[in-house]
Amino acid sequence: MTQTPSHQTPLQMWKTLARKRLLQVGDGRFLVVENHTLQLPDGQVIADWPWLVTPAFVNVVVETEEKKFLCFRQAKYAIDSLSLAVVGGYLEEGEDPLEAARRELLEETGYQADVWIPLGSYVVDGNRGNGRAHLYLARGAHWVQPPDADDLEEQEVLLLSRAELAQALRQGEFKVLPWATAVSLALLHLATEESPLGGTPAD
Amino acid sequence: MTQTPSHQTPLQMWKTLARKRLLQVGDGRFLVVENHTLQLPDGQVIADWPWLVTPAFVNVVVETEEKKFLCFRQAKYAIDSLSLAVVGGYLEEGEDPLEAARRELLEETGYQADVWIPLGSYVVDGNRGNGRAHLYLARGAHWVQPPDADDLEEQEVLLLSRAELAQALRQGEFKVLPWATAVSLALLHLATEESPLGGTPAD
Repeated sequence: MTQTPSHQTPLQMWKTLARKRLLQVGDGRFLVVENHTLQLPDGQVIADWPWLVTPAFVNVVVETEEKKFLCFRQAKYAIDSLSLAVVGGYLEEGEDPLEAARRELLEETGYQADVWIPLGSYVVDGNRGNGRAHLYLARGAHWVQPPDADDLEEQEVLLLSRAELAQALRQGEFKVLPWATAVSLALLHLATEESPLGGTPAD
Repeated sequence: MTQTPSHQTPLQMWKTLARKRLLQVGDGRFLVVENHTLQLPDGQVIADWPWLVTPAFVNVVVETEEKKFLCFRQAKYAIDSLSLAVVGGYLEEGEDPLEAARRELLEETGYQADVWIPLGSYVVDGNRGNGRAHLYLARGAHWVQPPDADDLEEQEVLLLSRAELAQALRQGEFKVLPWATAVSLALLHLATEESPLGGTPAD
């Protein structure tokens, strides 16, 4: 990689000097707001930095044995129209992300999958924290039992071809950020797998 | 699209019955927490639904005239190691997202771009709101003036080839969710542009 300009000193991390709880909603499972006092690498201290503690979650792009992508169409509180959605949910306390992903797939769809491809783990907000997204592509998914979802959302189940999935993404039908992230990373993974060198001659 | 099972009644939206401010940090520009009372389509009322009001932001994947991708390597408070990053920042009050994207590009890099491709607009959290991400791919970017960033982060500037950008994404070097989203959507856009039919024979 080209670095321009190059720095002589390595970049330093920020330090947390103090943290105070500003707000806890209910038992704090879904939201705690903290105030942090922090120090920048240059020594500057910031005394009023809000920080959001929310649960980690998984999202799973599900490809069935028939090479169809299992999605939902559903209402969510934060959007004023229906959205396409992928499988997902919060991690339970102490739960491993992959186990949570398998559990959510089975609960929400009644499917199990043979192949699990990690698509990365990302902090939601680089400034405030606000939880962590663990994203997966599950392949070879097959029905094993009726779904057992206790989610609040009504939803329709859709089975999309890969071209339909890509088109829906381009058209903005996945309206929630981590869902769009998971779908785009899954499509890139599948494209890279078929054309491992990737890129163009210009690269 | 295949719908299974099909529903006879259209899916309904959730309704906000009441909202109350629980917490305002400072002048509220960066964070207000509300409690919402809401009603589900089936009539069920939920009285304690936390809601996060945070500013909308832009992220921009920047391709220069030389077909290099302009990225940063920087520390962010929410991550404990350096991350690759794309151009980005919060919208100012009343600012149009595309104008914010042009402004952030110029401020952070000193570049302007000829071609702006929208990569979508996404609510960050489908349950809690927490702001909206407006994502762009800027092409044909060229240097016009020294950067004028007042950001808190120290950063290195990198110019990556498209293959290097794709590899960095796969290796998890973009550690913040909207940055990974913007990069993956930009790479998909570029791949689709070159192969407009997309997909595989199996589609």
